[in-house]
Amino acid sequence: MAFVTEENLTDLAEKRWATAHTPRLAELTTALVRHLHAFAREVRLTEDEWMAAVEWLTATGRISDDKRQEFILASDVLGLSTLVVQLNHRFAPDATPATVLGPFHIDGSPPAPYGSDMSDGVEGTPLFVTGRVLGLDGTPLPDVVLDVWQADADGTYESQLAEVDEARLRAKYRTRSDGTYCVRTIAPLGYAIPMDGPVGALIGRTGISHFRPAHIHFLIDHPGHDRLITHLFRSGSPYLDSDVVFGTKDGLVVDFDEHPAGTAPDGSTVDTPHLRAVFDFVLQPSAPDGTRP
Amino acid sequence: MAFVTEENLTDLAEKRWATAHTPRLAELTTALVRHLHAFAREVRLTEDEWMAAVEWLTATGRISDDKRQEFILASDVLGLSTLVVQLNHRFAPDATPATVLGPFHIDGSPPAPYGSDMSDGVEGTPLFVTGRVLGLDGTPLPDVVLDVWQADADGTYESQLAEVDEARLRAKYRTRSDGTYCVRTIAPLGYAIPMDGPVGALIGRTGISHFRPAHIHFLIDHPGHDRLITHLFRSGSPYLDSDVVFGTKDGLVVDFDEHPAGTAPDGSTVDTPHLRAVFDFVLQPSAPDGTRP
Repeated sequence: MAFVTEENLTDLAEKRWATAHTPRLAELTTALVRHLHAFAREVRLTEDEWMAAVEWLTATGRISDDKRQEFILASDVLGLSTLVVQLNHRFAPDATPATVLGPFHIDGSPPAPYGSDMSDGVEGTPLFVTGRVLGLDGTPLPDVVLDVWQADADGTYESQLAEVDEARLRAKYRTRSDGTYCVRTIAPLGYAIPMDGPVGALIGRTGISHFRPAHIHFLIDHPGHDRLITHLFRSGSPYLDSDVVFGTKDGLVVDFDEHPAGTAPDGSTVDTPHLRAVFDFVLQPSAPDGTRP
Repeated sequence: MAFVTEENLTDLAEKRWATAHTPRLAELTTALVRHLHAFAREVRLTEDEWMAAVEWLTATGRISDDKRQEFILASDVLGLSTLVVQLNHRFAPDATPATVLGPFHIDGSPPAPYGSDMSDGVEGTPLFVTGRVLGLDGTPLPDVVLDVWQADADGTYESQLAEVDEARLRAKYRTRSDGTYCVRTIAPLGYAIPMDGPVGALIGRTGISHFRPAHIHFLIDHPGHDRLITHLFRSGSPYLDSDVVFGTKDGLVVDFDEHPAGTAPDGSTVDTPHLRAVFDFVLQPSAPDGTRP
C-alpha cells in the first residue's frame, strides 16, 4: 500500500478530488489542490502561518453578513475580482470595458426620467452625465436601461445605511429614441474601503493605499448584448492609479467639466455652478451561440 | 498611466503586495496572489463559480466556533494540513513520522501512572499499548511525557461533548527509567468526519470516502528533541488507504494482537480478552541552532 509521503501527497489528493460527480467540479477541485499545494511548497508554509491563515479566514467569514461581505473585499484587494471580470468579459476593443460590480448594488432601483435628479436631497456638487448607448457598429440603441448607483460625499452607499425611506443615489435611466441618456446626480468622491475587519488588518501591514478613486457605477443589461457592468471614473481624481480594488481601466476615465449656473444639458435650469461629463457606452452583441465573450 | 488589463493585472497585484512591512509577509502575500491568479486563469473561473466560492468560504467561517473548526477540516480534506506537517517535520528516516494534530487535542490532560486506564468507564475492547521512547541513536529515554487522546466507539472526542466531569479518553503517560511506557485504553474505531457543514456538502458531491481509519493520537514534546505529533493506526482497519485527511503513513500502522483474559503487559490482571500493540517511538534531536527540520 502506498501511504502518504511529501512526494506523493499532491498527486494522491488530486486523484481523490478527481472523483467529483461533474467534470467541471473535478476540474475546479483538482486545480485548487494543485495550486494550493504549490503555494504551500513554494513558501514552505510554517505551522504558525497555517494557523494564522485559518484564523484569518474564520474571522473573515464571521464578520460577513447580509450587509457586509468581507470575502468579496478580500477578493477585490487581491485583484481576483477584477481578474474574474476580465476572464469572463473579453469584449471587443471598441466596446466599453467592464469592471468590478462591487458589493453595494441594490436590485430594483426606481425608474428615473431623462435628466431627473437621483441625488435628491443629498449634498454635493451637481453633476450631469450625458451621452449615448451604442451598438458595436455605432448604431444608437433606444430604450436601453442604465442602472446607476454611487456613494455620497462620505463614501457611503445606501446599502451601508440602516433602512432609508426611498432610493438614495441610485436609479434606472432609459435611453431616448436617439440613444441619448441624461443622469443628474452629485459628483462622487474617492473613499476608503472598510478597514475595521480582517482585510483592513492585513492591508494595514502593507504600504497599500486603501482608497478608491471617485466613480459612478453603471449596469446595462440590454437584450441581444453582453451585460455590461462598469464604472465611470473622474479624471484627475486621487487614487486613480492606486485603486485598492484594481478597478480603474483606460477608457473609463472621463473629464468632469465645470460649468456656471444656467441651462443644464437637458434644457432645464440649474441655479449653481455644476459639472458635466459626456460618455458613450458601446455594447457588444451577444455571441449567437450564447458562449461567453 | 498603466491601468488594469488582463495581461498586467497579476503583475500589478504582486507589486502592490510586495509592499508588506516584513519580507516574510511580502513573500507570502505575493506568492498567494500569483498562485490564486494562476488558478483562476487556468480554470477560467466563471462569475457564478466565484460567487459560489465566496458563499462557501463565508459559510465555512460562520459554522466555526470554539468547538468546531471547519477551515481546519477543509485544509485536512484538501491534503494541506498533512503537507504543512511534512514541510515542517522532515525527520530522519529512522525517526517516527509525524502526522496531523487534528482539531480535538485538549491541553492539560491529567497524569496517568504506567498501565493505568484512560478509558475509565467508556465501553470498548481493552487495549494495551506498550513500548519504549528512544533517541535516534537507539538510547532509551526516561521521563518522557506521552500526551495521548482518542475517540470513543462512536467516533466522538471529549472536545465534541458538552462539559464532562473528568478527562475522557485522554491522559499523560510517562516513560520509566528504562524508557518503557504502558497505556491502557479501549480499541479505537474508524469514524466519519462531520458531514453537516460546507466541507461535508463538498465531499458529498464527490466519490471521496469521508471516513478515518482507527487511530490513537500521541504528542511527545521532550527537551532536546523535535516535538513529535503523530498517530498509531490499527493494521487491517477499514479506510487505512482512503483516510479522508491523508494522515496514514508507513511506519505508523501497528498490529493489535488478540490475547485471552489473564495477565496484562503491566503485570496486572485483565478479566476479559484484550488487545495488545507494541510500538517504539523514535525522537529526532533538535538541531543545535533551533532551525526546524
